Amino acid sequence: MRSSLTAALFCAIGTCVVVFGNEKAISVNLANSTVELIDYIKADDKAIGWYWLAELVDDFGHRHLGSDALEEAIDYTVAKLEADGFDNVHTEDVPNLPHWERGADKVIMTEPRNFELTVLAVAGIDPARVRGEVIVVHSFEELKQANAKGKVVLFVSPWKGYGDGTNFRRGADKVEAVGGIAMLVKSVGPFSIGSPHTGAGSKASIPAVCVTIEEAEMIERLTARGKTVKVDIEIKSKNIGTVTSRNIIFDITGSEKPNEIVLLSGHMDSWDVGQGALDDGGGMAAVWQAMLSLKQLAEKDPSFKPKRTIRGVFWTAEEQGLLGAQRYYETTKGGNETFFFVSETDQGAFRPRNLKSKLNFKGNATVERTMTEIAALLTENDLPLSIVPSNDQGDVTFWAQSGVPSVNYVSDQGEDYYFYFHHTRGDYMTIFKKDDIQYVAALLAGMANVLAQIQHW
Amino acid sequence: MRSSLTAALFCAIGTCVVVFGNEKAISVNLANSTVELIDYIKADDKAIGWYWLAELVDDFGHRHLGSDALEEAIDYTVAKLEADGFDNVHTEDVPNLPHWERGADKVIMTEPRNFELTVLAVAGIDPARVRGEVIVVHSFEELKQANAKGKVVLFVSPWKGYGDGTNFRRGADKVEAVGGIAMLVKSVGPFSIGSPHTGAGSKASIPAVCVTIEEAEMIERLTARGKTVKVDIEIKSKNIGTVTSRNIIFDITGSEKPNEIVLLSGHMDSWDVGQGALDDGGGMAAVWQAMLSLKQLAEKDPSFKPKRTIRGVFWTAEEQGLLGAQRYYETTKGGNETFFFVSETDQGAFRPRNLKSKLNFKGNATVERTMTEIAALLTENDLPLSIVPSNDQGDVTFWAQSGVPSVNYVSDQGEDYYFYFHHTRGDYMTIFKKDDIQYVAALLAGMANVLAQIQHW
Repeated sequence: MRSSLTAALFCAIGTCVVVFGNEKAISVNLANSTVELIDYIKADDKAIGWYWLAELVDDFGHRHLGSDALEEAIDYTVAKLEADGFDNVHTEDVPNLPHWERGADKVIMTEPRNFELTVLAVAGIDPARVRGEVIVVHSFEELKQANAKGKVVLFVSPWKGYGDGTNFRRGADKVEAVGGIAMLVKSVGPFSIGSPHTGAGSKASIPAVCVTIEEAEMIERLTARGKTVKVDIEIKSKNIGTVTSRNIIFDITGSEKPNEIVLLSGHMDSWDVGQGALDDGGGMAAVWQAMLSLKQLAEKDPSFKPKRTIRGVFWTAEEQGLLGAQRYYETTKGGNETFFFVSETDQGAFRPRNLKSKLNFKGNATVERTMTEIAALLTENDLPLSIVPSNDQGDVTFWAQSGVPSVNYVSDQGEDYYFYFHHTRGDYMTIFKKDDIQYVAALLAGMANVLAQIQHW
Repeated sequence: MRSSLTAALFCAIGTCVVVFGNEKAISVNLANSTVELIDYIKADDKAIGWYWLAELVDDFGHRHLGSDALEEAIDYTVAKLEADGFDNVHTEDVPNLPHWERGADKVIMTEPRNFELTVLAVAGIDPARVRGEVIVVHSFEELKQANAKGKVVLFVSPWKGYGDGTNFRRGADKVEAVGGIAMLVKSVGPFSIGSPHTGAGSKASIPAVCVTIEEAEMIERLTARGKTVKVDIEIKSKNIGTVTSRNIIFDITGSEKPNEIVLLSGHMDSWDVGQGALDDGGGMAAVWQAMLSLKQLAEKDPSFKPKRTIRGVFWTAEEQGLLGAQRYYETTKGGNETFFFVSETDQGAFRPRNLKSKLNFKGNATVERTMTEIAALLTENDLPLSIVPSNDQGDVTFWAQSGVPSVNYVSDQGEDYYFYFHHTRGDYMTIFKKDDIQYVAALLAGMANVLAQIQHW
């Protein structure tokens, strides 16, 4: 109890609310209904969110931008959401998206012995055939000092998190600038079982290829021992103009403030290796289960009907730089609707196990106080969660930057374990335990229920 | 102190030995020299064992039976051992070994959608083209009940350890017996990142292929949902007659009982995916570092010179069923030498972290008492170790069955973590921390020093 604050007790029919000098945003009534909702989802013994996702990923495979599978998966999902009875189910076009297709790219080490490396090209590169000597560098500083002209540059850096790692994956332009003929990069990730990583690159005209952690470190040792390492790089991947894809939108329409939107999101597209179960099928499945459960309770008990509209959005073209979300931000800006709150879940829909699980949060102090109340309520209900101020808002960064309060869920397993599988051939349903999705759904539903009902921040 | 036992104190020059009713095998002198040896190896700040192994695996790649790389790696290792100054360095031929080469095998799922599975053929199969419907079974009992005639049978069973898993991998003969046209099997292992497993199979004439854990579980879900799954299996792997390979033998000759052998071993050959750093390069490197260190100390201080001969052996053709070790057992049986003690290290040369690390032990109660003394001495010196009676003696099983005391080192990480990488493309140097090899070397050297010096068991 905050003893320095004035406290008062208000009682209505059957309900008492203790209000301190800093009035709490969550009334006892709202807290109770939120706990009921959380318990409802946690009691899911059929793991409906996990199976919803399993059907999507098993039946369509990867959902890489430009693939038939992505657009078919979008059609399928829209039909399912309509059958579920959500409001306002529709798609919105996102045109002029980059269309790149992976080919059977090969990197053969030709010296000191003949050996085919296990690789995945970085996205956006075109067919090429390059042969040359490899030099290994560990930083951009070292690249500047090295004589990289006419060489293949291999970046080998220790795992310091995804942001640091992607700097190197996106480093082909810097290699090209110093006369390098191709970039190889140690796969971005903390742990591997011979599984190369892929992802977006830079604007460069030289080949850019991820090598497994194991083989990158092997080449590092070979060159450190004074061996000359040469490679023959054959790229068959290619850019194929542009393509149009679609964001999926679905609502539970608000009863009092239908034009104020509480947005929950994940992204539909994936890379073309693995099946995008983790990145970001799990985010979508958790949003779906959260909203379905809230809708089901509201059909029996009108007090669960949200006052604001809760909107689910499944973005497209996230992997190419948040392009689906950016388009939606631009087309909705200045419209009739206002965004009260935005959220994304794209770093693993893993059940939170401890207080290292967090909502990366961007917003003002008043909103942060309410979010801290929500986190405390969730933590009390077996969903341990911290609120951590951060600019890392992923797809909803556009709203966050324009002043809309936003969060990005990162479980304790989202910090490191997530990157075992991220953008690899290992991104399959097997990653998730059956209860992961439902616990994240409970978290999102609990949060959204409060935010759609509170009178003020 | 065992208070029920009679104790006596014997003192010689500067040394006192407490002897209980059950006399201890390890004198204080021997314990002290063993601790000095252990400390010498633990102080290795250059990780010489790790780098010894790195050069072997980086320079030659995998060492699959029948490959040039295996025989070249054997030549290279022999030359290194000679340069180290070991005694009696030589190879012994192991003829009539099965020669099988992996081809570009493919398994395409053709229904319910078109998708190339990530697979590794089980060894020993021949070219074939088979198309058929997949049925999923979880046990041999279920196989008997199923209508497998004309079907492709996929075994999907939960990880219950390697022994259980290999029963399914070796199950093609059972599938063939009930009219199945091919066997698929969920990769044997507790954890995966899209990394299929391989290994030896059964004598069967139908294709036998390991599917990743992720994709096997996907097919299991598809069939459980009533979907018809069909596959097109194209095998290009083939058997190519027989081949001769070689075991490597090297000694530190005993000063008093040169014909009594304390044998430390690992195996040289590996599967053809990955590089056999774990399986079993690490075992070899630890044996090498243990023996080199003992030899170096003995050159300065004759008290380290073993009374019995300490022999290192690097087996060939372990992966095809301990064939190198079996041959050596048969050719040495009844010879001038007697085997006092045999050991193998083939389940990960990981540093022991806790008392789950163990020597699987086979021998009588007297020997077990001495081994328990050795384990206590090692445990006191940061090498925690239990002695666990077990028939699982790997390569040295032939001696173990004939009554020679034997052990098989399994670290705490050898029980589960080892099988993350075992027989996959992930078997590279990256698995080991730099100090893993030296701590296992310290363990083996400490044990061998005692066993080569003690007067009796």
